[in-house]
Amino acid sequence: MVDNGEMTNSTAASATVDGSTGFLTLDDADRRNPLSLTTMRAATGILRDFDRDPAVRVVVIRAHGPAFSAGHDLSEMVERTVEDERTIFSACTDLMTTVHDIRQPVIAQVQGMALAAGCQLVATCDLAIAADTARFSTPGVRIGLFCSTPMVALSRAVGRKRAMQMLLTGDMIDAATAVDWGLINDSVPAADLEATVAALAARIGAFSGDTLAIGKRAFYDQIDRTEPDAYAEMSEVMATNAVTDDAQEGMSAFLAKRDPVWRS
Amino acid sequence: MVDNGEMTNSTAASATVDGSTGFLTLDDADRRNPLSLTTMRAATGILRDFDRDPAVRVVVIRAHGPAFSAGHDLSEMVERTVEDERTIFSACTDLMTTVHDIRQPVIAQVQGMALAAGCQLVATCDLAIAADTARFSTPGVRIGLFCSTPMVALSRAVGRKRAMQMLLTGDMIDAATAVDWGLINDSVPAADLEATVAALAARIGAFSGDTLAIGKRAFYDQIDRTEPDAYAEMSEVMATNAVTDDAQEGMSAFLAKRDPVWRS
Amino acid sequence: MVDNGEMTNSTAASATVDGSTGFLTLDDADRRNPLSLTTMRAATGILRDFDRDPAVRVVVIRAHGPAFSAGHDLSEMVERTVEDERTIFSACTDLMTTVHDIRQPVIAQVQGMALAAGCQLVATCDLAIAADTARFSTPGVRIGLFCSTPMVALSRAVGRKRAMQMLLTGDMIDAATAVDWGLINDSVPAADLEATVAALAARIGAFSGDTLAIGKRAFYDQIDRTEPDAYAEMSEVMATNAVTDDAQEGMSAFLAKRDPVWRS
Repeated sequence: MVDNGEMTNSTAASATVDGSTGFLTLDDADRRNPLSLTTMRAATGILRDFDRDPAVRVVVIRAHGPAFSAGHDLSEMVERTVEDERTIFSACTDLMTTVHDIRQPVIAQVQGMALAAGCQLVATCDLAIAADTARFSTPGVRIGLFCSTPMVALSRAVGRKRAMQMLLTGDMIDAATAVDWGLINDSVPAADLEATVAALAARIGAFSGDTLAIGKRAFYDQIDRTEPDAYAEMSEVMATNAVTDDAQEGMSAFLAKRDPVWRS
Repeated sequence: MVDNGEMTNSTAASATVDGSTGFLTLDDADRRNPLSLTTMRAATGILRDFDRDPAVRVVVIRAHGPAFSAGHDLSEMVERTVEDERTIFSACTDLMTTVHDIRQPVIAQVQGMALAAGCQLVATCDLAIAADTARFSTPGVRIGLFCSTPMVALSRAVGRKRAMQMLLTGDMIDAATAVDWGLINDSVPAADLEATVAALAARIGAFSGDTLAIGKRAFYDQIDRTEPDAYAEMSEVMATNAVTDDAQEGMSAFLAKRDPVWRS
Repeated sequence: MVDNGEMTNSTAASATVDGSTGFLTLDDADRRNPLSLTTMRAATGILRDFDRDPAVRVVVIRAHGPAFSAGHDLSEMVERTVEDERTIFSACTDLMTTVHDIRQPVIAQVQGMALAAGCQLVATCDLAIAADTARFSTPGVRIGLFCSTPMVALSRAVGRKRAMQMLLTGDMIDAATAVDWGLINDSVPAADLEATVAALAARIGAFSGDTLAIGKRAFYDQIDRTEPDAYAEMSEVMATNAVTDDAQEGMSAFLAKRDPVWRS
């Protein structure tokens, strides 16, 4: 085990709740928000807390300072044993898996560079909105450490040729390219980023919490299945979703041309 | 079982054949062509009939009125048991699976809004051409019933971030965006839609029917496999395709610089 | 077995090494570089030789003449037994699989038309740069022999609707469309193609050879797995990559703000 207590401060990831939105904020701005072991574990814990908090209906991952995240904390990874390295990549995978596992949709609010595991985090979030000045890369090849865990999320977001281009060159892509390739959903002027994400979170947060949780779980349940298996699972998900209170309320309200009142 | 006899008229889906093209037409225009249980079963039956008809070489799915399809018939889904709901989603999955299973390529001719299961149907068709005024959305989240079966086809057509955006917001995308994301193949002025699809169907319909059937079956057979498994299957498909009468005729005609004469 | 000795000359595929780049060149320009059985076997052998040559850090597949490759040699495929055809498609699959299996990144340098198995070869390469005059198609349907093995690589590169469009119509797409769809990484003026690819190969060739090999193997290892399985594999790949000499050197050099010196 690596003791990184002295390397990262205790507030490298913080949680706040504003209305129905839970914010996970990376706040080691001076060091470009490295995903140190401490920070990854703290972030995972915050997401799990949000998962258990019925007041939180949408989660936003954001960062302080000019960079979103520079990726892993390399100072933790030199002169270590393979067991130490396994500990780090296991914590990283826990974080990424937790982004998919929690009930709430997770939006990445990307105000600056997202590199390596930072780019992986953006690729992993359900949705991502970036400042038009943001940049993305998986530069591990340049330091001899290929971005093999980031490639899992990256290749599933942007496809083979484009993932290979980023992985084999380490080149940056700009926000417009990231939109074009499907790595992020949209880019906006930096001055509008916070308000744009807040508005998106508010719109999603107004839907039934149970319905969002059913849908998000369903998405990741079906995405890796063959199409026949996916349909078998999803047909059952929809049938049981349809008889929930919120779906019955939502359909009745729609047919009566009135606004629904959600229970969850 | 739900008895919808009084809700949908008996001509909610009709079949016509014009030349080598079979048309499946949704014709409950006043109600925006809901995919009621009756309509889904009728549509599935029509597709299966086309599959057995050697005169039909291409299938076009089209609709009357301003909307392509508003999706499921919500009036069938309120105050029902989970068994009733299972019946509906099972019929829906049968319809989508049948689009892939029949011998003929299936083209969606999308003249207006395609919502929820209507959007799923467009995503499921082998090809799709839309009027530039058409719109697409998976708005189930807005009525508490997440579009979990549409997401199977949608996420496989447009990728993760864009599918999540449509599913979590219910927002419409326009035809140009649908082309950009790969949900449809092209959009054309509404006045040109019918002729564009007819020309496309005629071009495809001029190819060997057996070859089209071999290729379409192969496509969905390989798409869910690992790449090594896909190659193992497809190598055998091509070897056996190559010794068919139509392939031998096609290759010989090509080498002799003459037009081929298909047997099928 | 087919004896094609009289059909293709013995130099239909040649190997050269320039600096750290190995070139596999298709050089039956007069016949538009058909992927005859002889050529496919020669190309596969050349790639396997490159794989064993530590001086070769990047591979470029290029072609002489106006066409990149017209695909299979049809003269080998008429009036043959199914066993003959199996021999051809088995050799084709060996070639494509070998492109993925060798240690080095493989770049397609596409100066002209890439048809059928030629298009498959472009889709299979890790990266592809084309002249802006290049064209791509999978026209097998037109000769009764559906491009079922090309579809494996094509559908995984460009997605379902676009792959189906190319497969069902046999229509050409231009280089700009190929970039837009992710079939190739970039297109450049024909006069700049060779220099552009050389510069890309040199940039990639300057990275650690072991790191490139680890990353390329990892990419194809993870791409067909479920996401949880992919992460389990890739976490271990990164942990073991991190303790290699080149990764330790690369990270140390980065932290010390100096250039790394690779051992491999």
